[in-house]
Amino acid sequence: MLKNDLFLKALNGEKVKRPPVWMMRQAGRYLPDFMTLKNKYDFFTRCQTPELATKITLMPIEQIGPDAAILFSDILVVLQAMQMTVEMRDNIGPWIPNPVRSQSDIDKLIIPNINEHLGYVMEAIKMTKTELNQRVPLIGFAGSPWTLLCYAVQGQGSKNFDKAKAFCFSQTNEAHSLLQKITDTTILYLKEKVACGVNAIQIFDSWGGLLSPEDYNIFSWPYIQQIIDALKNEIPTIIFGKGCWFALHQMGKSGAAALGVDWTCSAKNARYLSGGQITLQGNFDPSRLLSPITEITEAVYKMINEFGKDRYIVNLGHGILPNIPVDHAKAFVDAVKSYY
Amino acid sequence: MLKNDLFLKALNGEKVKRPPVWMMRQAGRYLPDFMTLKNKYDFFTRCQTPELATKITLMPIEQIGPDAAILFSDILVVLQAMQMTVEMRDNIGPWIPNPVRSQSDIDKLIIPNINEHLGYVMEAIKMTKTELNQRVPLIGFAGSPWTLLCYAVQGQGSKNFDKAKAFCFSQTNEAHSLLQKITDTTILYLKEKVACGVNAIQIFDSWGGLLSPEDYNIFSWPYIQQIIDALKNEIPTIIFGKGCWFALHQMGKSGAAALGVDWTCSAKNARYLSGGQITLQGNFDPSRLLSPITEITEAVYKMINEFGKDRYIVNLGHGILPNIPVDHAKAFVDAVKSYY
Repeated sequence: MLKNDLFLKALNGEKVKRPPVWMMRQAGRYLPDFMTLKNKYDFFTRCQTPELATKITLMPIEQIGPDAAILFSDILVVLQAMQMTVEMRDNIGPWIPNPVRSQSDIDKLIIPNINEHLGYVMEAIKMTKTELNQRVPLIGFAGSPWTLLCYAVQGQGSKNFDKAKAFCFSQTNEAHSLLQKITDTTILYLKEKVACGVNAIQIFDSWGGLLSPEDYNIFSWPYIQQIIDALKNEIPTIIFGKGCWFALHQMGKSGAAALGVDWTCSAKNARYLSGGQITLQGNFDPSRLLSPITEITEAVYKMINEFGKDRYIVNLGHGILPNIPVDHAKAFVDAVKSYY
Repeated sequence: MLKNDLFLKALNGEKVKRPPVWMMRQAGRYLPDFMTLKNKYDFFTRCQTPELATKITLMPIEQIGPDAAILFSDILVVLQAMQMTVEMRDNIGPWIPNPVRSQSDIDKLIIPNINEHLGYVMEAIKMTKTELNQRVPLIGFAGSPWTLLCYAVQGQGSKNFDKAKAFCFSQTNEAHSLLQKITDTTILYLKEKVACGVNAIQIFDSWGGLLSPEDYNIFSWPYIQQIIDALKNEIPTIIFGKGCWFALHQMGKSGAAALGVDWTCSAKNARYLSGGQITLQGNFDPSRLLSPITEITEAVYKMINEFGKDRYIVNLGHGILPNIPVDHAKAFVDAVKSYY
């Protein structure tokens, strides 16, 4: 039995004495211990070595004290398992030397055997569960199919993912074929994570907000809905769509357990747009953690009051930034814990 | 008298037989003639040479046929006039070698004499007016103070302008002092443009959408409102806030003549959020111009039907992309002209 089940209670819509809190990228570059490991092992070595992934996942639990752990990994490991080469380059970020350009590129991708190609993630989950020893629940995650297509086609990060969008708008059938293949892989991958014991799943649609509502309903949402449908009887699913305020209504009726929102969507708008019943997660501006600690504490109280303490999970509106002082991150978590 | 006053009628809320159309960055890199000049003269030479700015401004009028011209220039010339060094570097974009870090950096900036430091813009306006010969109205523009602060502090383009936000959140007084200095300069600059004969002003708040609604009301909106207040009795003002759907309500009551919206905000949401009375401008996804021409035409009709033909100016939801085929851009404009 979990010693701290606040997070699962909030996902389940149960009343809580205070909302749970965790931070996207909480095991990240703002932690000096993470930087020590980062300087020693390259990015995918850290992802692919269960001992390292476990160690990194535990760091914020021990140093910052959030109410949930999220497995250290990357959304792009799914593309790697499908047999795309994905590198992580200094000062560039993700780098795909041979991005998808045609149906024949897509045909070369496989729907992998998960234990064969992503077994290291499953090992990391089991190891992390042991180390956590029921202290807090463990979140597993995946990128949305649209967001993975963005990288697979663009070949690297981008402000507007213009090549990825051009691909969808001019080679629409090919785009759907790629999206379906990613979706099928993602469902297998997440079901295996569930089998290994994660307590919740979060889907990151980091680039959904680059699409118009109409195109979102063509290229992103139907594939996320497939994933929700495949998982909803097994585990609570959180959908986080950066910039996807316009889709909160349909998300609210999707069978997801909770919806992540970013800081451009006020608590009031988020409650209204999502239908008022579903658990919401967010939405502190990560840059606002650069404010003085007293201001952070006040802003956290205000945010909880605006969302309401129930059906609410305190989080940032996107990943924590590398330049956030550790004591500011801790002040964020501590503020939630001191809420009454 | 203007031969084509559709754009001004729409700004004025008058009934029209079809909505006017123009495209943000319509004098841009998708035009082969623009690329010829670009390869010959560097960016700020093109901005600072009235003959070149005029020639570039006229290119889309002659080749694509929109209902308004917008002076070729850049939002960053205002920072240059304030005595910041701003370069345009290949593959990087704007580059500011000495970004603002402190009050003493701000104290060094001047509120310039406009004719002394930005006289070349005024020359370009007069020259363009002569060349246009009343064919279509001419739009002048400026960046919002917040958006200019983003560059002044970050020193270059950025996905999240984290340094600019850090500056605002940790050196708030300094941020306001810089914002006010930019605002004062911008008002002088735009009043001079009006004196030179531009027919409308557009304010680009390109990075307003990076702020939470609360921070938008601290760091961006009050300064835009000052600009609107200073201009509203002289000329119609269009406010375009990329990603600023959350601020449409207050924008609708600001005294602006029209509001630009991006493609993540549907026509229905934009009309609802802005109060239903003000003229709206937008919001075709620039990437959607990569669709086949028949799809572009259909999508334009659909968009006009959704916004309604009156109190509406057809535009993209952001600048046209460099990789758009010229005939696709023309198809966009032609679709509007064939609407009845």
